[in-house]
Amino acid sequence: VTVDILEKVITFCQKNSLLDPHDRLVIGVSGGPDSLCLLHILFTLTNKFNFPPPTAAHLNHHLRGPDSQADENFVKEVALHWQLPIVIAGENIADLAEQRGQSVEETARQVRYAFLWRVARQTGANKIAVGHHADDQVETVLMHFLRGAGLAGLRGMLPEVNIANLRLHPADIPSPAATDQEEPVKLIRPLLEVSRADIEAYCRVNNLLPRQDYSNLDTTFFRNRLRHELIPYLETYNPNIRQLLQHTAKVAAADVQVLKQELTRVWPAVIKSESPQQLEFDLENWLKLPLGLKRSTLRRAVELLRYGLRDISFSHIENAIEILEKSKTGAIATLPQGLRLTVSYDTFVIGPASGSVEAEDFQGPQLDQGEGLEVNVPGITPLPNSGWQLTASLLLPENIDPKEIRQAATRWEIYLDAATIRAELFLRSRQPGDRFYPLGMAGHSKKLNEFMIDKKIPAHWRDRIPLLVSNHQILWVCGYQPAEQTRVKSTTRGLLHLRFEQTSAT
Amino acid sequence: VTVDILEKVITFCQKNSLLDPHDRLVIGVSGGPDSLCLLHILFTLTNKFNFPPPTAAHLNHHLRGPDSQADENFVKEVALHWQLPIVIAGENIADLAEQRGQSVEETARQVRYAFLWRVARQTGANKIAVGHHADDQVETVLMHFLRGAGLAGLRGMLPEVNIANLRLHPADIPSPAATDQEEPVKLIRPLLEVSRADIEAYCRVNNLLPRQDYSNLDTTFFRNRLRHELIPYLETYNPNIRQLLQHTAKVAAADVQVLKQELTRVWPAVIKSESPQQLEFDLENWLKLPLGLKRSTLRRAVELLRYGLRDISFSHIENAIEILEKSKTGAIATLPQGLRLTVSYDTFVIGPASGSVEAEDFQGPQLDQGEGLEVNVPGITPLPNSGWQLTASLLLPENIDPKEIRQAATRWEIYLDAATIRAELFLRSRQPGDRFYPLGMAGHSKKLNEFMIDKKIPAHWRDRIPLLVSNHQILWVCGYQPAEQTRVKSTTRGLLHLRFEQTSAT
Repeated sequence: VTVDILEKVITFCQKNSLLDPHDRLVIGVSGGPDSLCLLHILFTLTNKFNFPPPTAAHLNHHLRGPDSQADENFVKEVALHWQLPIVIAGENIADLAEQRGQSVEETARQVRYAFLWRVARQTGANKIAVGHHADDQVETVLMHFLRGAGLAGLRGMLPEVNIANLRLHPADIPSPAATDQEEPVKLIRPLLEVSRADIEAYCRVNNLLPRQDYSNLDTTFFRNRLRHELIPYLETYNPNIRQLLQHTAKVAAADVQVLKQELTRVWPAVIKSESPQQLEFDLENWLKLPLGLKRSTLRRAVELLRYGLRDISFSHIENAIEILEKSKTGAIATLPQGLRLTVSYDTFVIGPASGSVEAEDFQGPQLDQGEGLEVNVPGITPLPNSGWQLTASLLLPENIDPKEIRQAATRWEIYLDAATIRAELFLRSRQPGDRFYPLGMAGHSKKLNEFMIDKKIPAHWRDRIPLLVSNHQILWVCGYQPAEQTRVKSTTRGLLHLRFEQTSAT
Repeated sequence: VTVDILEKVITFCQKNSLLDPHDRLVIGVSGGPDSLCLLHILFTLTNKFNFPPPTAAHLNHHLRGPDSQADENFVKEVALHWQLPIVIAGENIADLAEQRGQSVEETARQVRYAFLWRVARQTGANKIAVGHHADDQVETVLMHFLRGAGLAGLRGMLPEVNIANLRLHPADIPSPAATDQEEPVKLIRPLLEVSRADIEAYCRVNNLLPRQDYSNLDTTFFRNRLRHELIPYLETYNPNIRQLLQHTAKVAAADVQVLKQELTRVWPAVIKSESPQQLEFDLENWLKLPLGLKRSTLRRAVELLRYGLRDISFSHIENAIEILEKSKTGAIATLPQGLRLTVSYDTFVIGPASGSVEAEDFQGPQLDQGEGLEVNVPGITPLPNSGWQLTASLLLPENIDPKEIRQAATRWEIYLDAATIRAELFLRSRQPGDRFYPLGMAGHSKKLNEFMIDKKIPAHWRDRIPLLVSNHQILWVCGYQPAEQTRVKSTTRGLLHLRFEQTSAT
């Protein structure tokens, strides 16, 4: 088999203007087939066209014991052999994930991109190339579809993106002072239309001997099931599903661009005044917009006021539109992240619900307002549009260290007595009149509202904290306190383990 | 359980302006729960608000033996009991499907909508209500997603649509003369946000005793597997998938509307002259469009010139865009249905590939230009964007009537000797240099091009006829001739049965 993906990559780069003779490149190299193929191709291309040689960058995740060190050594050797500059760093991802209360995969993603960004800064590079390929793209599109992410989600990954637009952990991001001075660093994906099979064939033909697949680090249950179970299953419905989803992504990307342009075009007509704190809209003009632009103007308002918040729930927006269409002066709609919409006579304002608490943002898992979400037991329940999921497992107490049961690793994890749960479990937000029996109050009940005040939970967070309920009883004020009836006793026969985790966001 | 879906339906109808006091309604009633619930609700509403009483319309499909007559009698009794006018008709769908070489489900769909349209004409009605509900919507969105239908497909079914925009069989459509005179007849779906479970509960609470579910007539393998297997399976990934896909449909519908408006806005700037035969574009202005609008202007051109053709393949459009971006005078791109794009100095024209053959359209299954499509054996292979699928089964010769093997029911069906197929099967379009061994030519090979000329296949069809190939050999020029090596002999141990069918298009 002769695999000439080089031509394909060149055409793809030309079509999307990914490479320029003046580019200084950093290439993320794990040592797996995708990144090794990418390094080989870009090494070949920069040689051929006399571009400056790329810098290889490897982050040791310390997740696979001695194998991690072997990966690092392998990448070093390859760079030495090809006479390429290389930057190596290491991070104990497992520890950091525990510290941040995030999944290992999400932590690895954040730290890895931030590392590549720093390397780009240090080496004066303006582009970072990563090895995402066509099968990664298919998985991403499908994952977004299953999360109901709409057109923007169906785009999947773009061939080029500004790295500053990725959602990274604030602690990891290179200092903003530097950001302001330098030209924006782009993340590029030259292999985005090359299949995993072609990459593997390329490695064989070119005698590259890659280490374990980079993407296998992404061991999230969701994505792995998707790759190994769902996609092959969907192929029995449509054997060409991979190709079709790639087409879907391309069409969606271009349509999103048209919608964005249209949003930009109508924006001046609907906006009356803008400040970093709040936006004032012209109600009459806004009401004339077609529904699609009503939605996107409100979404943009939230994005402008709460930088980095991309997932805004369908219900928040629908609720706001309903209130605006009634145009009752003084009416209020709750928006995410402590924002509020207030209707006036011929304008409406989107701004903080309360001036004082604005600074602190709620960082936990959030629910679509008001809607009950059934929990899969055992299984995974993604929280729509929140970037979080809830994993529920049933365990025997003898298999768990009792210390762990009393003190879970993060506030988003808990062990409950499974026997006390006799009906379906749901997550919902608080409702008027909610009461519950906090653990350790000798079976006395308390108004949920009072409990939240005692716990000093800011007012604008209170609607957003998920409550675990079953049979109309609150079992866990998630992140704060379980209910008395869920207490694990010496007689407990089965444990329900619940853990909220951030899912990776590409 | 008290199920008050009535309020929900009223709100939905108001929000989407589905009902008006002056409306004269026809309601499609199979006797199943969906349509019976719909009839009861609309009967209640028209009574309550003093609208003219609706007409029930029932088409006996004669597909279920004596049960079909029982359905008909049941619907008659209900209408009599509620004192509603009713129109009944019958059609032997199975016979008609065979005659048309279509699937039973697609034929039933075409005939049913055409029947409702005729009833609307006869009774002077301006709206036809049908019982599609939220679960139907979820299935439709998912089906379109799996076929790669893009944003327009993700809309699923709309609350209201002009019945003239449905794809029906030309033989069924009420005469166009009448169409011109009368106001357009709308198809409305008042139950589109009500779940199947709620409909069933409504029937129980209101003592309605429906017959078999209407939608069970839709026994296509694809949709049934989707309903009973895929959706429950996807719920293990996301238990809220049904709700999310309904949200996806709503968001997509509004976004499609914005994109259409934008297309309408830019159209005058890119079009130089329009006629029913061809469209002339301003090349320079067209090149300035963002990619999304480049795609949609070309799609609209094909739709305008070939009325009713909605599924235009991704590859046709991409190929045309590539040629236009090179802007080489005289360059030509092939478009579907005998259309051709020709580049001039500062314009380009989309029109018939050849003036004389334009009249006859290729009605068979079509392939996305140039792309090999792997065939599922055994299984179903949807032909992307064509509205057709290929079903492949493996059978024992002793179970088939030898007469049937020699003379299949339609030209789109065939029995081959399975033993001669030793590698994967693909469908592809012809390529330069193709030869094959037509059955009955004593093992002599022939140039495919000459074979097509002998068969008097119009030039603009030739690229679109699917070829069944395996191991680089043409086994079937689909619809025309199998190859000698596939001949079923007395020694044949296994049969491969292939059948192209039109899939239902909602």
